[in-house]
Amino acid sequence: MQLPVRSRLLLLLLLLLLRASGLRAGERSSSAMEEITTEKEAEESHRQDSVSLLTFILLLTLTILTIWLFKHRRVRFLHETGLAMIYGLIVGVILRYGSPSSSGHDKPFSCSQEDRPFTTLLINVSGKFFEYTLKGEISPGKIHNVEQNDMLRKVTFDPEVFFNILLPPIIFHAGYSLKKRHFFRNLGSILAYAFLGTAVSCFIIGNLMYGVVKLMKLVGQLSHKFYYTDCLLFGAVISATDPVTVLAIFNELHADVDLYALLFGESVLNDAVAIVLSSSIVAYQPTGENTHAFDAAAFFKSVGVFLGIFSGSFMMGAVTGVVTALVTKFTKLHCFPLLETALFFLMSWSTFLLAEACGFTGVVAVLFCGITQAHYTYNNLSVESRSRTKQLFEVLHFLAENFIFSYMGLALFTFQKHVFSPIFIIGAFIAIFLGRAAHIYPLSFFLNLGRRHKISWNFQHMMMFSGLRGAMAFALAIRDTATYSHQMMFSTTLLIVFFTVWIIGGGTTPMLSWLNIRVGDHAPSVEEINESRWLYFRVGVDPDQDPPPSNDSFQVLQGDGPDSERGNRTKQESAWLFRLWYSFDHNYLKPILTHSGPPLTTTLPSCCGLLARCLTTPQVYDNQEQLREEDSDFILNDGDLTLTYGDMTITANGSSGSRTATTSLDGRKTKSSSEEALEHELGMGDHEVTSRGTRLVFPLEDNA
Amino acid sequence: MQLPVRSRLLLLLLLLLLRASGLRAGERSSSAMEEITTEKEAEESHRQDSVSLLTFILLLTLTILTIWLFKHRRVRFLHETGLAMIYGLIVGVILRYGSPSSSGHDKPFSCSQEDRPFTTLLINVSGKFFEYTLKGEISPGKIHNVEQNDMLRKVTFDPEVFFNILLPPIIFHAGYSLKKRHFFRNLGSILAYAFLGTAVSCFIIGNLMYGVVKLMKLVGQLSHKFYYTDCLLFGAVISATDPVTVLAIFNELHADVDLYALLFGESVLNDAVAIVLSSSIVAYQPTGENTHAFDAAAFFKSVGVFLGIFSGSFMMGAVTGVVTALVTKFTKLHCFPLLETALFFLMSWSTFLLAEACGFTGVVAVLFCGITQAHYTYNNLSVESRSRTKQLFEVLHFLAENFIFSYMGLALFTFQKHVFSPIFIIGAFIAIFLGRAAHIYPLSFFLNLGRRHKISWNFQHMMMFSGLRGAMAFALAIRDTATYSHQMMFSTTLLIVFFTVWIIGGGTTPMLSWLNIRVGDHAPSVEEINESRWLYFRVGVDPDQDPPPSNDSFQVLQGDGPDSERGNRTKQESAWLFRLWYSFDHNYLKPILTHSGPPLTTTLPSCCGLLARCLTTPQVYDNQEQLREEDSDFILNDGDLTLTYGDMTITANGSSGSRTATTSLDGRKTKSSSEEALEHELGMGDHEVTSRGTRLVFPLEDNA
Repeated sequence: MQLPVRSRLLLLLLLLLLRASGLRAGERSSSAMEEITTEKEAEESHRQDSVSLLTFILLLTLTILTIWLFKHRRVRFLHETGLAMIYGLIVGVILRYGSPSSSGHDKPFSCSQEDRPFTTLLINVSGKFFEYTLKGEISPGKIHNVEQNDMLRKVTFDPEVFFNILLPPIIFHAGYSLKKRHFFRNLGSILAYAFLGTAVSCFIIGNLMYGVVKLMKLVGQLSHKFYYTDCLLFGAVISATDPVTVLAIFNELHADVDLYALLFGESVLNDAVAIVLSSSIVAYQPTGENTHAFDAAAFFKSVGVFLGIFSGSFMMGAVTGVVTALVTKFTKLHCFPLLETALFFLMSWSTFLLAEACGFTGVVAVLFCGITQAHYTYNNLSVESRSRTKQLFEVLHFLAENFIFSYMGLALFTFQKHVFSPIFIIGAFIAIFLGRAAHIYPLSFFLNLGRRHKISWNFQHMMMFSGLRGAMAFALAIRDTATYSHQMMFSTTLLIVFFTVWIIGGGTTPMLSWLNIRVGDHAPSVEEINESRWLYFRVGVDPDQDPPPSNDSFQVLQGDGPDSERGNRTKQESAWLFRLWYSFDHNYLKPILTHSGPPLTTTLPSCCGLLARCLTTPQVYDNQEQLREEDSDFILNDGDLTLTYGDMTITANGSSGSRTATTSLDGRKTKSSSEEALEHELGMGDHEVTSRGTRLVFPLEDNA
Repeated sequence: MQLPVRSRLLLLLLLLLLRASGLRAGERSSSAMEEITTEKEAEESHRQDSVSLLTFILLLTLTILTIWLFKHRRVRFLHETGLAMIYGLIVGVILRYGSPSSSGHDKPFSCSQEDRPFTTLLINVSGKFFEYTLKGEISPGKIHNVEQNDMLRKVTFDPEVFFNILLPPIIFHAGYSLKKRHFFRNLGSILAYAFLGTAVSCFIIGNLMYGVVKLMKLVGQLSHKFYYTDCLLFGAVISATDPVTVLAIFNELHADVDLYALLFGESVLNDAVAIVLSSSIVAYQPTGENTHAFDAAAFFKSVGVFLGIFSGSFMMGAVTGVVTALVTKFTKLHCFPLLETALFFLMSWSTFLLAEACGFTGVVAVLFCGITQAHYTYNNLSVESRSRTKQLFEVLHFLAENFIFSYMGLALFTFQKHVFSPIFIIGAFIAIFLGRAAHIYPLSFFLNLGRRHKISWNFQHMMMFSGLRGAMAFALAIRDTATYSHQMMFSTTLLIVFFTVWIIGGGTTPMLSWLNIRVGDHAPSVEEINESRWLYFRVGVDPDQDPPPSNDSFQVLQGDGPDSERGNRTKQESAWLFRLWYSFDHNYLKPILTHSGPPLTTTLPSCCGLLARCLTTPQVYDNQEQLREEDSDFILNDGDLTLTYGDMTITANGSSGSRTATTSLDGRKTKSSSEEALEHELGMGDHEVTSRGTRLVFPLEDNA
């Protein structure tokens, strides 16, 4: 019911006159008019929001249907994330060149204001007051862009959406679905790659890019400012690897579990490191005129910021995980899976908010929360809650990840401020290649000095190859695109992600065979997987905890050097630090936080007897051996345990999922020690005694 | 790093001078200063958002833990929603009286502007441009409230959050978890209560409230405008019942399934009716000066709006459900539960967005989408996907519902514009009591003329009693609180919700016994429920589809009048319209959308043979009897089927979950007709032949 402008003006005039005379009816109709106008605008805006979200849902639906088709036909050259990007690209093209340009709704209005901008403004429109909130700053050169394509604007999200809504489920799921055994076994290497490696990579890429920038200035390709800190920031952003495609293929083909653990562990942790590193670089603010000279005080402040944020976020995540573990341990919530699942979800979400409220990084906190929950809380949940929580976060992760990758494809066309510079792009590709090489090979060399089970050259080449970039790099790059340099960095990051996901991701399977990396002898069909999942589910063993046994049994049968050495790995390999941590975890943390043994009443000194009794639940005495078994996957009997204490080579027998060992292990309760448990986990765990067909396992070892 | 005001002004002055002289360094530092200032404000705002969300998470966590405690001790006088409200109240008190008042951040700035308000503003602050977006209108008298308690503002949500984020999962879950059999059996009555009843209730309450308003004006209690349309709007808003507490208790105590179905069905549908009714009343805009006189044209336009929005939303929901059913039928997605669940979720969400984008009501659309999905798509999902989707929406529903109820408690103290008027409040209570009476009793009388199985007086009293208000009434009331009248309506609605949920909800159990409404002979313990769920799950029968058999078997054994009549209900009770719908659904819709029989190749005329062959999947021939069985819950054998065609009284035998009937029913394939299936569902379904202990079921009936 919009009247033409002239009538509206007349009405306003009438309004002013009527106001003066105090007649209410007229006031009502004109205010009604403006109400309608405002309402229609709000409605229109709401409708556009719905349409833009619908676009994404369409993208995701197409992606899902195509993924199904690919899985159906065992297509492996294109992973779901690459697919989502392609669809995003297509829709981006349609939106960019298909939809009408300026619709004239958003005309900028200039109103001068001294002092600083306020968060809230009240604008007086003919006597009615309207409230406006601060959205952000627009650089002067881009004002005309405000009058831009409505549709493109609507599908452009505030970058904080990624950090507040989309990344947390992805990162939490990565932590929660960790393959714990292999992760902790390679913990030292993973930490080295993640921390040292990312720092090295950042530094090298940053310096190389600074050289490239200098070159660009030399040939006159660059007219804007591009500081050294910007290059370092680019280095940090682009160091966040995300080998989703590679890991998915590894999973499907049952490639080497240690390689999987190294890559996976490195990728989740270096995401965390990259975020905090980029925050510290941004926080680098030297005093004085030249804001980009080296200032030792500011440098150490940045280092302090890094350590502070990282450890603070770590503490937040761990604390929430611990609280959830205690709550699920001391209440009978497991009788009510719905309540338990809801509580689990809320506590995990609260980690994020708590970290953000305290000024730390929410995403890093949820990572460590996920790891803690997987390590402690998971054991306290009921069987149904375990599957519910896994499924809940799995579906959230799936949707969020494909959403981000679709958005990446879309952003190539909808982002209005791209800056593509060929020299910079080529330089960036070279830099990340060199950075990855400088990260992987030297570190592997040093790690191999300490590892018993060396990281072979093939593995190193594979890791070198698997430096895909993805969601985290994108989110970090899009976070701040205010300046020319940042826009160039964002555009380059986008291209790098496209290239690595499509080309390198697509080349994973050929590369695996070229490098002769062993894969499982057969990839089980989907029905087999589903059926086996049912089997495991019924007998209470979770196949998702660790890779399925067929892989390990196949490997053990290989019989060549590295495998037979594994049995010797127990004592020598495990670094002192790890063994220290393990004994602390096994003797104190797990008994406090879960129902596992050994009971605190035996391990704590007598002065803490009361505390020990409070914290020990009756289930401990039943579960003591059960938990250890679950950690080591399948059954082990007396014979296996004595293996490390004698020269006997025995034939292990058993069938998947049998629980007969429980009784036979009772007699060993008195001998339980963390040493034994450690060997149990590290050494024995390898020799899973599943028999498929007529294969038997012959563990060979001696106590050196 | 915030400098004091004087230094900032000096800096700005310096800035202006430096700008004039063109020195970049100064510009960088002062722009850095403003950047920091803006960033700090944004950071502070983000932190406050996190803290406010954390408050809600704390509320929900407390609620969950207390719910567990209550369930543990079988406390029934306080349901989880009432509990959530109490915690919300407590936190509201703390926030209102505990936190500091104005923090001075949000100072309003007045800038005059002619013409209409724009959606986007560009404000020029010393040469830098900042973008502001329109938030909403502030009434002149409340300007000073903008400078209000920051904390209270942060925990106050935009009312659209309820309609866009919180209500859809609740309403979808209501539709998706419908107890189909009893719902469709009482469909006519449910539709009558929902549509006619809500309209009657709205009209009566509206008129009564108008009288109250007149009274208030008379005694000088009311100085603002309060129109007739406002009263009608109040009537529509407050007619949305939400007997969550009552239904939960019914469920737990296994009260009469028909009563449950009537109450539940009425509540979900009258939510939908209330939303659309309130939208139509708001859309009532007569031409001319007096905007609140009766204008026939405007009236019919409102009726048209109602019908248009309702049917449009219905179509949207049904279409999306149908599309999902077809997709899940013709792809092998059921091999991949994750993909299937994700697709299901996306399609259901898209219903909402599609409806909103087209100008209909998203919440109504998701209701019908949920019903359609439950009726068709559910049958196509794999077993794992069925449980995954149910669990996913169950947890979303749980969280959203308790969130809203917590917010209600909070809103009593955080909402800044309450208007409590004793006369209005008392009048409202009387009006809703009378409105409910005028809604239930006359309608039941008329319905009983057509029903075979009358709605007894006790049932009517119980339904009268169960008029609780909840989330929908609250959301509709809070949607628009701009004017004095609407604020009074909102405050009154809040009090009504408190009263009905706490007092009436708490009195449900005593009322059930006072009215002698039969309940199940024992409420199974949680372990029993879990165990039985496992049992059903293994053999593929979903207990959540319909109430557990113990209830029905108990009732059949009652042997008094109404029950034995049930067997006669088959032919006479089912209204002609329902039978028509049923045969259409059974013969055409279900075969098209699911794998159920009869095969389209037999039911469609030969001209559509090609189409029929395309739409018929091979599974149809296997599933033909299986689906019918699932609908009717447990097994039936030949003897039961012949029951309706003879005078034989036979002993039905069988055990829960057995599938032996499949083979015995084969011989009956040739006789399958919709009539038979109908009787099967309506009549035979009652006589579930479960035997618990030594109880046997003796169905008595004759073909009158």
